[in-house]
Amino acid sequence: MALTFPFAAIVGQEEMRLAIQMLAVDPTIGGVLVLGDRGTGKSTAVRALADLLPPIKVVKDCPYGCDPLGSTLCESCQTAQSGHKLKTEMRAVPVVDLPLGATEDRVVGALDLEKALSQGIKKFAPGLLAQANRGFLYIDEVNLLEDHIVDLLIDVAASGENLVEREGLSVRHPARFVLVGSGNPEEGELRPQLLDRFGLSVEVRTPQDLDMRVQVVRRRDAFERNPQAFRDEWEAANTKLRQRIVRAKKLIHDLQVSDDLLLQCATLCHKLGTDGLRAELTLLRATRAYAALQGDTVAELKHLRAIAPLALRHRLRRNPLDDTGSGARVQRAMDEVMPA
Amino acid sequence: MALTFPFAAIVGQEEMRLAIQMLAVDPTIGGVLVLGDRGTGKSTAVRALADLLPPIKVVKDCPYGCDPLGSTLCESCQTAQSGHKLKTEMRAVPVVDLPLGATEDRVVGALDLEKALSQGIKKFAPGLLAQANRGFLYIDEVNLLEDHIVDLLIDVAASGENLVEREGLSVRHPARFVLVGSGNPEEGELRPQLLDRFGLSVEVRTPQDLDMRVQVVRRRDAFERNPQAFRDEWEAANTKLRQRIVRAKKLIHDLQVSDDLLLQCATLCHKLGTDGLRAELTLLRATRAYAALQGDTVAELKHLRAIAPLALRHRLRRNPLDDTGSGARVQRAMDEVMPA
Amino acid sequence: MALTFPFAAIVGQEEMRLAIQMLAVDPTIGGVLVLGDRGTGKSTAVRALADLLPPIKVVKDCPYGCDPLGSTLCESCQTAQSGHKLKTEMRAVPVVDLPLGATEDRVVGALDLEKALSQGIKKFAPGLLAQANRGFLYIDEVNLLEDHIVDLLIDVAASGENLVEREGLSVRHPARFVLVGSGNPEEGELRPQLLDRFGLSVEVRTPQDLDMRVQVVRRRDAFERNPQAFRDEWEAANTKLRQRIVRAKKLIHDLQVSDDLLLQCATLCHKLGTDGLRAELTLLRATRAYAALQGDTVAELKHLRAIAPLALRHRLRRNPLDDTGSGARVQRAMDEVMPA
Amino acid sequence: MALTFPFAAIVGQEEMRLAIQMLAVDPTIGGVLVLGDRGTGKSTAVRALADLLPPIKVVKDCPYGCDPLGSTLCESCQTAQSGHKLKTEMRAVPVVDLPLGATEDRVVGALDLEKALSQGIKKFAPGLLAQANRGFLYIDEVNLLEDHIVDLLIDVAASGENLVEREGLSVRHPARFVLVGSGNPEEGELRPQLLDRFGLSVEVRTPQDLDMRVQVVRRRDAFERNPQAFRDEWEAANTKLRQRIVRAKKLIHDLQVSDDLLLQCATLCHKLGTDGLRAELTLLRATRAYAALQGDTVAELKHLRAIAPLALRHRLRRNPLDDTGSGARVQRAMDEVMPA
Amino acid sequence: MALTFPFAAIVGQEEMRLAIQMLAVDPTIGGVLVLGDRGTGKSTAVRALADLLPPIKVVKDCPYGCDPLGSTLCESCQTAQSGHKLKTEMRAVPVVDLPLGATEDRVVGALDLEKALSQGIKKFAPGLLAQANRGFLYIDEVNLLEDHIVDLLIDVAASGENLVEREGLSVRHPARFVLVGSGNPEEGELRPQLLDRFGLSVEVRTPQDLDMRVQVVRRRDAFERNPQAFRDEWEAANTKLRQRIVRAKKLIHDLQVSDDLLLQCATLCHKLGTDGLRAELTLLRATRAYAALQGDTVAELKHLRAIAPLALRHRLRRNPLDDTGSGARVQRAMDEVMPA
Amino acid sequence: MALTFPFAAIVGQEEMRLAIQMLAVDPTIGGVLVLGDRGTGKSTAVRALADLLPPIKVVKDCPYGCDPLGSTLCESCQTAQSGHKLKTEMRAVPVVDLPLGATEDRVVGALDLEKALSQGIKKFAPGLLAQANRGFLYIDEVNLLEDHIVDLLIDVAASGENLVEREGLSVRHPARFVLVGSGNPEEGELRPQLLDRFGLSVEVRTPQDLDMRVQVVRRRDAFERNPQAFRDEWEAANTKLRQRIVRAKKLIHDLQVSDDLLLQCATLCHKLGTDGLRAELTLLRATRAYAALQGDTVAELKHLRAIAPLALRHRLRRNPLDDTGSGARVQRAMDEVMPA
Repeated sequence: MALTFPFAAIVGQEEMRLAIQMLAVDPTIGGVLVLGDRGTGKSTAVRALADLLPPIKVVKDCPYGCDPLGSTLCESCQTAQSGHKLKTEMRAVPVVDLPLGATEDRVVGALDLEKALSQGIKKFAPGLLAQANRGFLYIDEVNLLEDHIVDLLIDVAASGENLVEREGLSVRHPARFVLVGSGNPEEGELRPQLLDRFGLSVEVRTPQDLDMRVQVVRRRDAFERNPQAFRDEWEAANTKLRQRIVRAKKLIHDLQVSDDLLLQCATLCHKLGTDGLRAELTLLRATRAYAALQGDTVAELKHLRAIAPLALRHRLRRNPLDDTGSGARVQRAMDEVMPA
Repeated sequence: MALTFPFAAIVGQEEMRLAIQMLAVDPTIGGVLVLGDRGTGKSTAVRALADLLPPIKVVKDCPYGCDPLGSTLCESCQTAQSGHKLKTEMRAVPVVDLPLGATEDRVVGALDLEKALSQGIKKFAPGLLAQANRGFLYIDEVNLLEDHIVDLLIDVAASGENLVEREGLSVRHPARFVLVGSGNPEEGELRPQLLDRFGLSVEVRTPQDLDMRVQVVRRRDAFERNPQAFRDEWEAANTKLRQRIVRAKKLIHDLQVSDDLLLQCATLCHKLGTDGLRAELTLLRATRAYAALQGDTVAELKHLRAIAPLALRHRLRRNPLDDTGSGARVQRAMDEVMPA
Repeated sequence: MALTFPFAAIVGQEEMRLAIQMLAVDPTIGGVLVLGDRGTGKSTAVRALADLLPPIKVVKDCPYGCDPLGSTLCESCQTAQSGHKLKTEMRAVPVVDLPLGATEDRVVGALDLEKALSQGIKKFAPGLLAQANRGFLYIDEVNLLEDHIVDLLIDVAASGENLVEREGLSVRHPARFVLVGSGNPEEGELRPQLLDRFGLSVEVRTPQDLDMRVQVVRRRDAFERNPQAFRDEWEAANTKLRQRIVRAKKLIHDLQVSDDLLLQCATLCHKLGTDGLRAELTLLRATRAYAALQGDTVAELKHLRAIAPLALRHRLRRNPLDDTGSGARVQRAMDEVMPA
Repeated sequence: MALTFPFAAIVGQEEMRLAIQMLAVDPTIGGVLVLGDRGTGKSTAVRALADLLPPIKVVKDCPYGCDPLGSTLCESCQTAQSGHKLKTEMRAVPVVDLPLGATEDRVVGALDLEKALSQGIKKFAPGLLAQANRGFLYIDEVNLLEDHIVDLLIDVAASGENLVEREGLSVRHPARFVLVGSGNPEEGELRPQLLDRFGLSVEVRTPQDLDMRVQVVRRRDAFERNPQAFRDEWEAANTKLRQRIVRAKKLIHDLQVSDDLLLQCATLCHKLGTDGLRAELTLLRATRAYAALQGDTVAELKHLRAIAPLALRHRLRRNPLDDTGSGARVQRAMDEVMPA
Repeated sequence: MALTFPFAAIVGQEEMRLAIQMLAVDPTIGGVLVLGDRGTGKSTAVRALADLLPPIKVVKDCPYGCDPLGSTLCESCQTAQSGHKLKTEMRAVPVVDLPLGATEDRVVGALDLEKALSQGIKKFAPGLLAQANRGFLYIDEVNLLEDHIVDLLIDVAASGENLVEREGLSVRHPARFVLVGSGNPEEGELRPQLLDRFGLSVEVRTPQDLDMRVQVVRRRDAFERNPQAFRDEWEAANTKLRQRIVRAKKLIHDLQVSDDLLLQCATLCHKLGTDGLRAELTLLRATRAYAALQGDTVAELKHLRAIAPLALRHRLRRNPLDDTGSGARVQRAMDEVMPA
Repeated sequence: MALTFPFAAIVGQEEMRLAIQMLAVDPTIGGVLVLGDRGTGKSTAVRALADLLPPIKVVKDCPYGCDPLGSTLCESCQTAQSGHKLKTEMRAVPVVDLPLGATEDRVVGALDLEKALSQGIKKFAPGLLAQANRGFLYIDEVNLLEDHIVDLLIDVAASGENLVEREGLSVRHPARFVLVGSGNPEEGELRPQLLDRFGLSVEVRTPQDLDMRVQVVRRRDAFERNPQAFRDEWEAANTKLRQRIVRAKKLIHDLQVSDDLLLQCATLCHKLGTDGLRAELTLLRATRAYAALQGDTVAELKHLRAIAPLALRHRLRRNPLDDTGSGARVQRAMDEVMPA
């Protein structure tokens, strides 16, 4: 119903804007954790990016928004597909807000109680994961959410499928989405296991530059007083950003990463002592996405360097003897492993 | 059923009276937190203000009290509207009390169980948020309420929409209201995240002046012994206040705020180290509302000065090295940033 | 079923007897908290007073016992009233015991499950608050009750209405009753917020006089061995007390309180530092009720003096530097403010 | 089904045997708390006493076992009685065991779910309190039971009525029973409030005399190997005890207690500082019951002396400066107040 | 379905094997607590013993396995019996495993929900206690079970009847079984009240003899690879053991215990300070069972001596000044009371 | 739906790969606990192994996947079998993921609510244990699972049968599966009782060799970009591994273990002080499985030596005086008992 703030009109917050654009290009990077001050427009940015992206083609009336060309379809679309061409429609990229206190039922879907009670039919009522397919799932204050829900969200986001086994139902449907979790580290921590499963992390801070602050407030107030006029004003700038992302999604398919660059990823992770190999895989994908956004066709050291802090910062073990922050530790390791 | 105490007859409590009048002029300021002693007439003041305001025009029989001229209508009003003129009726501005122990069901609305059980129909039973649309939602002892309910209330108040996703229902209806939360800081604290999302905060204290105390008791007793006679006595004074608010609501649409004044808002917030930019946005809106109440058409420094303590006091971080109260810290910062 | 012990036959416990008689005269004084030893006949006294009062006229068959002449009627009585004279009947003044572990459902009323299940009708099943209308609600060990139930009881007692918003029901019915809570301060404390909302507090102690003790046991044993004979014996004394209360209820309507006396109330409260102005309002009402019980038509200092300890004792903040009991502190303040 | 051990064959445990006989004579004494070692035959003694008592005459088929001559009948018996003579039958005195973990539902009775579901009828399904009417309710390890259940049991035992207000039911039925609670003070304590409401308390200990121990085991083994033969052997002795109780129940109605003896009760209680006057009332009743068991028609000091320890021991406040046990303190007070 | 390991093939664990054989001879001894290392074949031994015993004759189709010659029959068998001879069938001695997390419903039986919902019939669905009648109930890790379930099991085992009072059901059925509880004292303790109610306790330890260990593993492996062949191999040895138990069950009926031996039981218990007289009763029964297993017709000191540690070890109070283990304390007392 | 990573393409993690192959050869070894870093491909390996194994022959449409030649069939297959040959079909070896927060209902199966409600039929809805029959059950973060669920899983895995006793159902079906539990010992510990019941334990660590890391990432990325092509590439290597396992499953039936080797198992366990004899049984089975995988027909010391650490490491008691890790303690004991 309400109009969305234009992505191009966002002031500052470069890290966050970069991260969600990279995720739009390659969702397998695995979500982003946005840490920092409240009131800095985190939710606005996610909503604005989704609004920026071109609408997607989906199977008509499909509650999961199945991609008619995708390799995985929901059961209903599979049935419809056998021998027929699927009807399609265009939809906006979904952004789903996970409300605080959302139950597992509502997240994964559940038995449709109405149908069960009134007609004795056992039907699946899709949940938020179904709505989020091919879009974004935004969780405010992810550190206050129950661990098992976070776990579940990350598992589904990683596998791209939601498998529901409950109340005698056994449903499997596509659920590919970008997970965006925000949180204030002063309020409660995520288990390292969960941190590690977010692809990227970024920090957002209250801007310290006074002019920038006035600009933010001015734009926000202008938007709220007349949303449509404000959007018209920023349409051209938004279009340019949209084209950049669309181009990057094409480029990435053939984008090369050399073994040498991969070795540098491994060396960097080894130096920082990250657990397992998720960090390397993320570096690989994020480097590719970043290069594609730059319009490049070969991933290079400069691309890796640009995104390494976002991919690594949240994966460091606490070292009680080294009290430099994790950002500084990543930087120091980069300086040693790949001196500029 | 019971008659309401006249707003004009309230003795003392200037801050609280000012704050709720400003909110009546511009509800997007974002609610008020009323902190202080028990037994000081907090609930009475809210009820009295709502009673003071002119009745509102709503779509006939609409459970959400949709504004027939508003941009957002509930689904039923949208359907009714297509091709027809909506029938209307007048209603008093609602004041909804959130009872202690109210469940989320009752607050946001839920499946209408009766209809579901008896007729097998899945219908939405609107909750307190629906009742509060275009009026006031009052929460006594907000610090004793569960965090997730407070969160939910603030989210809805901010977005102006109640989006219900549960039990297979997916309902969205307008829910614009002014949140008034009262509490005693000696009894339990709100998380900084919640504090920050209230637009204003005011303090109420037991009056120390003996004559004022006698006056309060006298008026209260007179009202209780004969409510109608007491209201008649204060009708003229109440009408004057009503007209002032109505005028302000008109003035505010074209009220100007200079970039210079905005820079002073930013400087003040920066000086006080408030998180994010909600403080600035609130200062901007509150300054406008206050100027409009004064009958002015341009916002000036004097307006900002008058409302800054109400907008900032509850957003300060605790500074363990500075034990001056938050009121004094706001004052000191104002003196430095914009010396009189 | 069982017969009630006659009020006039109660031995000792003057404070408690006075307090509940005052409440019978003016229920808006706001209930009484009875603190002290177990086994001292607290429940007996409440039951005996209710039994003493003349029966009340109510709308026939009304589950809320609506007063046919009252300003607030339940919905059903309102409907019946339009154009017809309401049929009436006489009932004894109700005394409702709040059982330990009573659920909110049972207290405020709830959906009538039987009707809902068997006939698909959504009807309200009135709760204990409905039963208590125009009578007494007795809570033993109020300090062991959950805070939110106490809160709810006090809110309803103060407003005189029970507003039920749950399970799709929206019911409002009159619920004017005198709240009598008993408790042992050695077992658990009430929050100051709750203490403050009881109008009066009294202390009950095991009598130390041996003859009085024998008298209590003698009368109790005599009553239990032959209740009817014992009641007959005390009938005349009981009648005299009844007439005194009936007379006081008439006198109070025109009973005057001078501004000067009111100023003394305010000075006393200010001196003692009570929060808000509930204390003053209670002093005003209790002074009036006491004067009326004495048969006087003007409230005077002597009346204020007699009831001030009952109205103020439980509202004092703990002063860690002053270890005199709250009774002594009230007395000292009275001696200073209004020396005899 | 199983046969009961004969009361007359119980070896030792004089205090406990005396207490339950007194309660059989006058149930208003108010129950007994049996404290001490496990494995000492507490439950056996209660069961044996009930088995000893002559069967009672009850209204035929009445689930509450209403006394056809009693002053309080259940609703169904009241209806049947109007204009007709009630049919009667004989039943054994009931002994009800409160199982650990019994729910409030099961104790007080509840809605008959079967009838509600299958026939849409709201009927009361009587609970354990109904079963126990006119008999004994035995609670093993009363100190492990939830306080609110103990409270409830004591309240009902004291009033002789069970008033059920739940699930839309409003039922009242006679529930006069003797409460026997056993517990091990080493395992958990009862709140003083609960202690005080038991009429008597007795201690049971493992016998230290070896011959007595052999005798207990011998008799127990003989009974278990051939219950019927063992009962036949003890029939005469049992009959004698039965006649003694029956005689006492008749004698007690006209048994006199002088004011002088009552003053000694009061003096004793005052000396010991018991709270309230329950202790005096219990002394009065127990003295009468004991005198009646002795076949006496006037209560005397010697009777008071015999039962005072049972009635007072559990009502003493802990005196931190006096570490003599409560038995010794009662004895010392008796020696001072009424020297032999 | 699966075949059972032959009792005769069990290696070592003499105490446990003796205890469960004694319980097979006289179930009123009251169960056994098996304490010690995990992985030592506790469950195997119980299952093997039950498999060893001859099948029992039961009333045909009776869900409780009523003994057609028994004194207590279930209601259905009682009805069937009136005037007819009961049809019978043979069944294996049942062994019931109490699963961890078993609910009280499942243990004691409950309303048959299916019948209630589909046919409106209130029928009892028997629980594990019904299944265990006349057999063994095995609880692994009894110290991790909730106390109230343990309590319940012990109560039923002691009385031989399961009395169900819930959901409007009132069912009583025979439930005579041998309770075998295993546990590791390092993991959590049983309340002394519960310990005391087990008749016997035994310790099981990992064998320290290497050849014995090889033998255990060899036999276990041989059994698992070909259960039937292994059972055939041990059939003769098993038969011999079976005959010994059958003979003992006959002998025990007329087996004499002299008063002198009983006095020694009492002296021993007194010396050890056991609470109550359960210890003596157990000694008496266990001595008889042991003598019967030896084929003797008179119980003698040597029999008492053999079983005393099993019957007493778990009943000692902790003596903080005596740190010898309870086994040693029992031994020392035996040496003093009845020197060899 | 998604394709599986080929087992042969897994880099490193020798211990884990060995353990799950041994379990594929002899599932009675009893599951494996995989301890170590996150992100090291634990789940991938299990899935890959199951994918490697040849499909199994099952009774057509059987929800438990009954083996048509197996000794234990589900009830439905038993019925179908009587007099007829069972129809069969081929299925992939199942791998079941136990989702975090899975309820006991979902794990063991439960009443089919739909059928119960709509048709009044009591039917069993099989759970995850039914699905896992003859395959693998994978539990991520087993240390975060509730103990009683872990217990239940281990019990079923050990017995090979799932026995459901609830809601009036009594179902027994085959449930033979290999339990694979993964966990991070830094996050929470398993009770020793649970540890001991896993047959094997292995450690997985982040590879420290940089080339290996690059190789892992390379292969993973190649697989994700084109799963089918990657699988084709590894098909031959996978086939070789499959044949090795198939051969071992045949060899193991006649594989000999000498008494001498068994004595060495016992000596080793005795030396390490493992509780009970589960360790020896596991050593025996694992040695056989390992020898079979090597293609040998006689188990020898070298086989025992290879698998002893996997079978013993998790069974050691903590020795506070010996702080060498459990791996080192096992190694030292092996060196002493069976010097190379």
